[in-house]
Amino acid sequence: MPILKVAIIGGGHIADQNHIPALKALGDRVEIVSICSRVKEKARALADKHQIPFAYDKAAEMYAGEGRPDIVVICTANNLHYPFAIQALENDCHVFCEKPPALSAEQASEMAELAREKGKILAYNLQLRQTPEFTLIKKCREEGTLGRIYHIKANYLRRRGIPGWGNFTNKSIQGGGALMDLGVHILDLALEMLDYQMPDRIVANTYDFLGKAGGKGLMGEWNPDSFEVEDACFAHLSFPDNSSISLSASFALNMKAEKDINLEVFGTNGGAVYKPLSLFTEIGSELANIDFPHIEEADIQLKNTIAFLDACEGKHSNIANAEQGAILQKIVSKIYESAGS
Amino acid sequence: MPILKVAIIGGGHIADQNHIPALKALGDRVEIVSICSRVKEKARALADKHQIPFAYDKAAEMYAGEGRPDIVVICTANNLHYPFAIQALENDCHVFCEKPPALSAEQASEMAELAREKGKILAYNLQLRQTPEFTLIKKCREEGTLGRIYHIKANYLRRRGIPGWGNFTNKSIQGGGALMDLGVHILDLALEMLDYQMPDRIVANTYDFLGKAGGKGLMGEWNPDSFEVEDACFAHLSFPDNSSISLSASFALNMKAEKDINLEVFGTNGGAVYKPLSLFTEIGSELANIDFPHIEEADIQLKNTIAFLDACEGKHSNIANAEQGAILQKIVSKIYESAGS
Amino acid sequence: MPILKVAIIGGGHIADQNHIPALKALGDRVEIVSICSRVKEKARALADKHQIPFAYDKAAEMYAGEGRPDIVVICTANNLHYPFAIQALENDCHVFCEKPPALSAEQASEMAELAREKGKILAYNLQLRQTPEFTLIKKCREEGTLGRIYHIKANYLRRRGIPGWGNFTNKSIQGGGALMDLGVHILDLALEMLDYQMPDRIVANTYDFLGKAGGKGLMGEWNPDSFEVEDACFAHLSFPDNSSISLSASFALNMKAEKDINLEVFGTNGGAVYKPLSLFTEIGSELANIDFPHIEEADIQLKNTIAFLDACEGKHSNIANAEQGAILQKIVSKIYESAGS
Amino acid sequence: MPILKVAIIGGGHIADQNHIPALKALGDRVEIVSICSRVKEKARALADKHQIPFAYDKAAEMYAGEGRPDIVVICTANNLHYPFAIQALENDCHVFCEKPPALSAEQASEMAELAREKGKILAYNLQLRQTPEFTLIKKCREEGTLGRIYHIKANYLRRRGIPGWGNFTNKSIQGGGALMDLGVHILDLALEMLDYQMPDRIVANTYDFLGKAGGKGLMGEWNPDSFEVEDACFAHLSFPDNSSISLSASFALNMKAEKDINLEVFGTNGGAVYKPLSLFTEIGSELANIDFPHIEEADIQLKNTIAFLDACEGKHSNIANAEQGAILQKIVSKIYESAGS
Amino acid sequence: MPILKVAIIGGGHIADQNHIPALKALGDRVEIVSICSRVKEKARALADKHQIPFAYDKAAEMYAGEGRPDIVVICTANNLHYPFAIQALENDCHVFCEKPPALSAEQASEMAELAREKGKILAYNLQLRQTPEFTLIKKCREEGTLGRIYHIKANYLRRRGIPGWGNFTNKSIQGGGALMDLGVHILDLALEMLDYQMPDRIVANTYDFLGKAGGKGLMGEWNPDSFEVEDACFAHLSFPDNSSISLSASFALNMKAEKDINLEVFGTNGGAVYKPLSLFTEIGSELANIDFPHIEEADIQLKNTIAFLDACEGKHSNIANAEQGAILQKIVSKIYESAGS
Amino acid sequence: MPILKVAIIGGGHIADQNHIPALKALGDRVEIVSICSRVKEKARALADKHQIPFAYDKAAEMYAGEGRPDIVVICTANNLHYPFAIQALENDCHVFCEKPPALSAEQASEMAELAREKGKILAYNLQLRQTPEFTLIKKCREEGTLGRIYHIKANYLRRRGIPGWGNFTNKSIQGGGALMDLGVHILDLALEMLDYQMPDRIVANTYDFLGKAGGKGLMGEWNPDSFEVEDACFAHLSFPDNSSISLSASFALNMKAEKDINLEVFGTNGGAVYKPLSLFTEIGSELANIDFPHIEEADIQLKNTIAFLDACEGKHSNIANAEQGAILQKIVSKIYESAGS
Repeated sequence: MPILKVAIIGGGHIADQNHIPALKALGDRVEIVSICSRVKEKARALADKHQIPFAYDKAAEMYAGEGRPDIVVICTANNLHYPFAIQALENDCHVFCEKPPALSAEQASEMAELAREKGKILAYNLQLRQTPEFTLIKKCREEGTLGRIYHIKANYLRRRGIPGWGNFTNKSIQGGGALMDLGVHILDLALEMLDYQMPDRIVANTYDFLGKAGGKGLMGEWNPDSFEVEDACFAHLSFPDNSSISLSASFALNMKAEKDINLEVFGTNGGAVYKPLSLFTEIGSELANIDFPHIEEADIQLKNTIAFLDACEGKHSNIANAEQGAILQKIVSKIYESAGS
Repeated sequence: MPILKVAIIGGGHIADQNHIPALKALGDRVEIVSICSRVKEKARALADKHQIPFAYDKAAEMYAGEGRPDIVVICTANNLHYPFAIQALENDCHVFCEKPPALSAEQASEMAELAREKGKILAYNLQLRQTPEFTLIKKCREEGTLGRIYHIKANYLRRRGIPGWGNFTNKSIQGGGALMDLGVHILDLALEMLDYQMPDRIVANTYDFLGKAGGKGLMGEWNPDSFEVEDACFAHLSFPDNSSISLSASFALNMKAEKDINLEVFGTNGGAVYKPLSLFTEIGSELANIDFPHIEEADIQLKNTIAFLDACEGKHSNIANAEQGAILQKIVSKIYESAGS
Repeated sequence: MPILKVAIIGGGHIADQNHIPALKALGDRVEIVSICSRVKEKARALADKHQIPFAYDKAAEMYAGEGRPDIVVICTANNLHYPFAIQALENDCHVFCEKPPALSAEQASEMAELAREKGKILAYNLQLRQTPEFTLIKKCREEGTLGRIYHIKANYLRRRGIPGWGNFTNKSIQGGGALMDLGVHILDLALEMLDYQMPDRIVANTYDFLGKAGGKGLMGEWNPDSFEVEDACFAHLSFPDNSSISLSASFALNMKAEKDINLEVFGTNGGAVYKPLSLFTEIGSELANIDFPHIEEADIQLKNTIAFLDACEGKHSNIANAEQGAILQKIVSKIYESAGS
Repeated sequence: MPILKVAIIGGGHIADQNHIPALKALGDRVEIVSICSRVKEKARALADKHQIPFAYDKAAEMYAGEGRPDIVVICTANNLHYPFAIQALENDCHVFCEKPPALSAEQASEMAELAREKGKILAYNLQLRQTPEFTLIKKCREEGTLGRIYHIKANYLRRRGIPGWGNFTNKSIQGGGALMDLGVHILDLALEMLDYQMPDRIVANTYDFLGKAGGKGLMGEWNPDSFEVEDACFAHLSFPDNSSISLSASFALNMKAEKDINLEVFGTNGGAVYKPLSLFTEIGSELANIDFPHIEEADIQLKNTIAFLDACEGKHSNIANAEQGAILQKIVSKIYESAGS
Repeated sequence: MPILKVAIIGGGHIADQNHIPALKALGDRVEIVSICSRVKEKARALADKHQIPFAYDKAAEMYAGEGRPDIVVICTANNLHYPFAIQALENDCHVFCEKPPALSAEQASEMAELAREKGKILAYNLQLRQTPEFTLIKKCREEGTLGRIYHIKANYLRRRGIPGWGNFTNKSIQGGGALMDLGVHILDLALEMLDYQMPDRIVANTYDFLGKAGGKGLMGEWNPDSFEVEDACFAHLSFPDNSSISLSASFALNMKAEKDINLEVFGTNGGAVYKPLSLFTEIGSELANIDFPHIEEADIQLKNTIAFLDACEGKHSNIANAEQGAILQKIVSKIYESAGS
Repeated sequence: MPILKVAIIGGGHIADQNHIPALKALGDRVEIVSICSRVKEKARALADKHQIPFAYDKAAEMYAGEGRPDIVVICTANNLHYPFAIQALENDCHVFCEKPPALSAEQASEMAELAREKGKILAYNLQLRQTPEFTLIKKCREEGTLGRIYHIKANYLRRRGIPGWGNFTNKSIQGGGALMDLGVHILDLALEMLDYQMPDRIVANTYDFLGKAGGKGLMGEWNPDSFEVEDACFAHLSFPDNSSISLSASFALNMKAEKDINLEVFGTNGGAVYKPLSLFTEIGSELANIDFPHIEEADIQLKNTIAFLDACEGKHSNIANAEQGAILQKIVSKIYESAGS
């Protein structure tokens, strides 16, 4: 395979700490040729730090110049996912986009349609799919250990985890709060367990009491006066085959644990908890609990970047693809709609 | 106050072990005069055991005879709550009825209406209201410790707790399964925390996979071939003031714990877990967890019988009254309707 | 099936508390007709207590009289197992004998041979076979979960459990100490897992330091001056197919736990610990530990008596039979021989 | 004392990380003058890294040249311990040899004999002797706290610890598997507790099922196709004074713990567990358990190197000496012989 | 020895449940002949229940009549210990008196003096002395394990343990509160460890805030309006040999534990905690913690009654004797004096 | 505010690791201009390391020269606190002095008086006041959660924590042992909770058994032969308003924990434990325990230096001021006096 040329769009923490190191570690498959950031100096500095040849402050110049890539990795704020993805696809690039896919169902659908037309890969960095725990749950599901899965409780909850930095509480930039930023991760896993169906019934509620009231911050101090998004979201999704998901996401909630990021999966032959992974089933007519004491931490960003590159090379891959992203975003939009927020 | 005369209808375990002992312990307020059971010998035996003067196998005879009561306690199967309650009210008796109120929203409404017309107390034996934990949560709510409560997770879950006795899996007698038998208890508590509003949106799913498949029983062995009710029910209730409840009830579910009977209450000033009772709030700008190490077990049947008698005597009481029972039953019906079961 | 007539020989605790209650609970299959004890009054008293028709102080009279049985249950001291079993078989009775089978390999072989000749069941009350944990290990072994089992650690250890009553420290009556009284139970389970092969190599050591020195007793106070048996025995058994057992038994040992009664089973596909039952294997290429949180205590005496009766009726049964008893006793003898004790 | 000159033979990890740092830390007693490795560049690189004057690829040149040492430290593969030790002794050097002593009983005996003839110290790097826990057990034994020790369980077990690097699974280079690599460490400690007697009876079994089947590796991934050694070894050793050792060693075993490296020591006055160190005895006629909460980790390689140097200087030392090494190797050989491997 | 005749004075719970059963169990040494209670019927009923020949409501009649005893056991309220003990001694009886000895130092001294004059045993029922833990600490002290003991923390603390029955909060009857009722028990143990010296310096403080404020009761509900005694007492006692005791006693204190009844003993060779018994010392130059996992509960009332009878028979006994009681009461008086209460 | 000039007196660990880093971090308020140490080279080296302009070995030269400061931070041995503080005040400097204030009550009083005369701030580095736990206890006290505090147990105990370095066991330099070095920290906190009253009654005992006997050291090895101070001190302090403190401090004590640094605070409405912070009170008529799971570690030296600077700038501050230091030292002197040491 020829080495693919990659451009990074967005010069923040996630480019610097997640995507660039993963891509660098895959030097036999890709080469980062360009970095593009609204602030030229930031682009320049990152390029120097990581020895990237070209730095731009306008993507259009990049596509027109020497640093023209085969692949574009979008690490910008949520509201820029859509324009940069469209531009990249129109420039015949594969696109690896940070989550959430976009700000609206319409944007995500349009992105997926254009990728299909262009015959390019558009995929999303929902990297929890690569945790060894999720891989093993899926394997167990495929081998029938769980039977048919019919209900999932999906939680991404923080007690006081409103980030005190970035744009996380700004609705026009982020498009939403706890659901948009956290909930999509765990919802993606739950949907994978149900073959990424589209639910036919959704009821949801969102809240912003704690975010607007202020309080002790465990991830820095946030400003309650500029808090515009939901701090908590609770939804029930019902699917055409009568499966269901109970989804809970929060930046802030008066709960005991500092955080609770988990799936409870209920199937006809067995159930599972995602982390630490445990299975609950019957063995020899007795109720059995199964633990996996030696699961090792994995570099899930690296594994997800590999999954994306595999997709670009036409290989089978478990990356979150354009169609899945469109479904995910459509569900998010319907949840907000149901909640009236 | 004069001593009120009480008749028991239904001669099963719940009459023998719960209601009769509680009433006997309140001998300064009530006297059990009659017991009525379809099987005359059963009525006779219980009457002898508890020194109750009159035993009947037809309620009509009781109302016509010496054993005529002021209060009727209904301990029959679910499908007989409605006819016996109507009959008792028409005979100008107060009625203390086992849960669930009835088989349908219509029945429960009609019962409430007749009680109102007759000026009699109709109340339901939802005795978890009398646990000291729930009493204390309510007190904390009233004192503002929890602020406005906006979301509640209400669980009454068993891993393999399909009863191997009685009619629990017979739909025409019971009217339903896990929701009807277990879920109503915890839903009643959740509704109390939200002032017993009627939700305006409900989505629900019910299942019967495990009940119909059979397996290891932790409450005796059930017969999967005659299993007609739901073994699990998951619902989301949204209220006009944007509060919400996430309700889960199961007879059988592939989960870790043997059972999980709990409320998680989320309010603007604090949260609470029902059992063991804990509160989560801020004190002096620090996150605080509050435990109550010396809560003592209470005789909740006795306390609920007292609450019923207080209501009969016109005193303030936290008994589940006729209107609440009608709302509860209406929600149950809507959940089943939404689930298509 | 006709009701079988049973005689009890030996009037001690084990007859009164274990065998008679189990037999009584099986009144649809057996009837206890006689009890025989060296001390006539003891026989009489037990007969009265349990409403047994005939009491004897000489077994010969029993066989000659009205109380003549179909089945004889031997609950005497170890040294009388052999003579009473021979006598019972010669009187054409099935024999259910307490463990250990006898005092020597020769006795046990002779007993087995006579049973074969007479076409009668001779079986031993090694009731740990009936624990649900052992049943489940065997089922897992049969289903291949454990693969081929090649090494077993079998422990029946007590820190200070020399019984302060009975004849447990008297060599001529008991035939031995910790191995004879405790070790045979766990060795029987280990041998079952290896298809009751006869080992071809044995090395063993026995000790009596603590028994002869005296000390704090956790099962009453024993007399060090009359301590004649081994307080600890350690042996390694190697089998023709290269399987092996490491056996440890003690009445007294300077260890941490008060007792340690366990099997560790090592197989090619998985390992197991007997109590609390756990399995150790690989699932989905990850190391997995499996627990069984809802195993219920069983009445193992009742189950073992049923297994014996099934054998008498010609049904398949997992009772310790005459041949197994002979092998077990032969191993015990070879262990003592190897240890020079 | 004059500073002794040291040569290192073998340029692998154990030289680089263990022996050289320990010797460097003892610069007032020794000076590393030479390093010798089959691969010249490796020798050169290590010499540079540690500032060692001379590097050789042939030991003979070293003995003939400037880098001629007083002491030789052998850090090669097991199969080269014997030739290099013989050569060093013939060159009148003290020898500090990695474990195991050699590939066979004959080799180790010959090495010990030559050392005796030459009047030189030959010792083995069995450094677990220097752990503070073992030091304290020995002190307790000497003070009589344990009384006479009569049985020891010695375990060096790993669940899935077949090293995925080096020659650990190559029989001709290593001479054996779990026993040779791991078992000798814990066996050495057990023998020390019994005054390094030679057992008069040994029965043993070895296995290679898991090694040859492959599976999840916790110390890298091994190749089952080239697995030639035992993955598990179980043995019983009986000594002329009737003491006994039950020895278990494994690279891979279907057990719960990831590893179990321990001694259980049973004496007439008390017992001990090696790690974390606990004693079990009687105090004031009550059973007592003694823990040592403040035992600090020690640099056991440094302490063992000091013990070796003390021996070279004629001081009392607890180093594993040539005679002990010969006994240890003889037992290893007899275990393999008994196991038919 | 002849059987001694015993009279019980006081017909409350402590006579009925503690003293009479213990004396009954010692029927080979004593016989209860009389019981004396202010209320004749109470005396009569107890006599009937326990088959005691004579019942009186006036002690004088007892001494004059048939029921004249050799031993008097005083189980009355605290304020009657003194008059009944004096009367009993004057009637030449041995006296076994409940704790505390009396209401004042003067009373207790006078009682001791009269006993000495009369040559009779006067002893107090401070039965914690008979716990196996205290027996073992004393043995360790005697064997030197603890060295010289120089400081003791003695706690008898309850969080909310003001008894809701009896006269515990009435100062004229009880003579005091937490110190008088609870503290004397643990102070007695501490004094025993220091050879029952009289301290030469005492500073103390007492409080009654919680008792007078009311609150949640864990031993019934007390009446804060009639609360006259101290609910907490803290004192430091310094002895002529520079030993010291820090004493804390409470009926009610805002602490975490429900109760804390313990001694911490600090000696030159080791320290000890009373319950669960642990020792802290050095073994082999390492810090060691010693636990006693098999200490069994003892019937401390029975053992203390035996100790009293041994004293009556002139045997060595560890009963709290008249002189010790006088010292104990003198310290109590000095503590109250220091606290100004 | 102008930048204040600071001089450090004393060049040891506490200057280098605690004070200088804190002052450096406050570069917008202070500038370290001079460092003064008895050993010129030490002063020079520290000055170089921290880029401090001037280094002196005589403080007088400093006051006379270019390095003349506004603030003097005294980090010397205890016996030099007094002379350097007097000298600094006479040179019109604010003084931030390490604890303990001085060697005697007289010194500390004189220091406070001179500071008052000079109108300068004299304060002590008792930095435990700045822990978030203590801050929160004080806030709770102020808000009435604890009510009136009437008894405090204040412990600063180490099992074997006699420092093996420095002058900690030299009485003429340190002025005392465990009380002077450790006890003052926890006593300061306790006094703060009682508004820094002067007690009117004190009884105390001090000991040096372990220090003089030697033993296992957990903070290095100390020399028992030169051990001149108390290794343990126990005292009871009673205040004019009947509050009381029970104080315990030790370098070495035969206790279980390695160390115990804590306050138990008992108030009329609630109690508190300092670390980890817990409150014990009643909520809704039930006993409640409150924990604070998210208290974060603070840089207490930095916070205390800020508190000192605030005081210098005339702001409200919770620094330990000159008057409090004089009271603290007076109590220490009275404790030693009472103990006769």
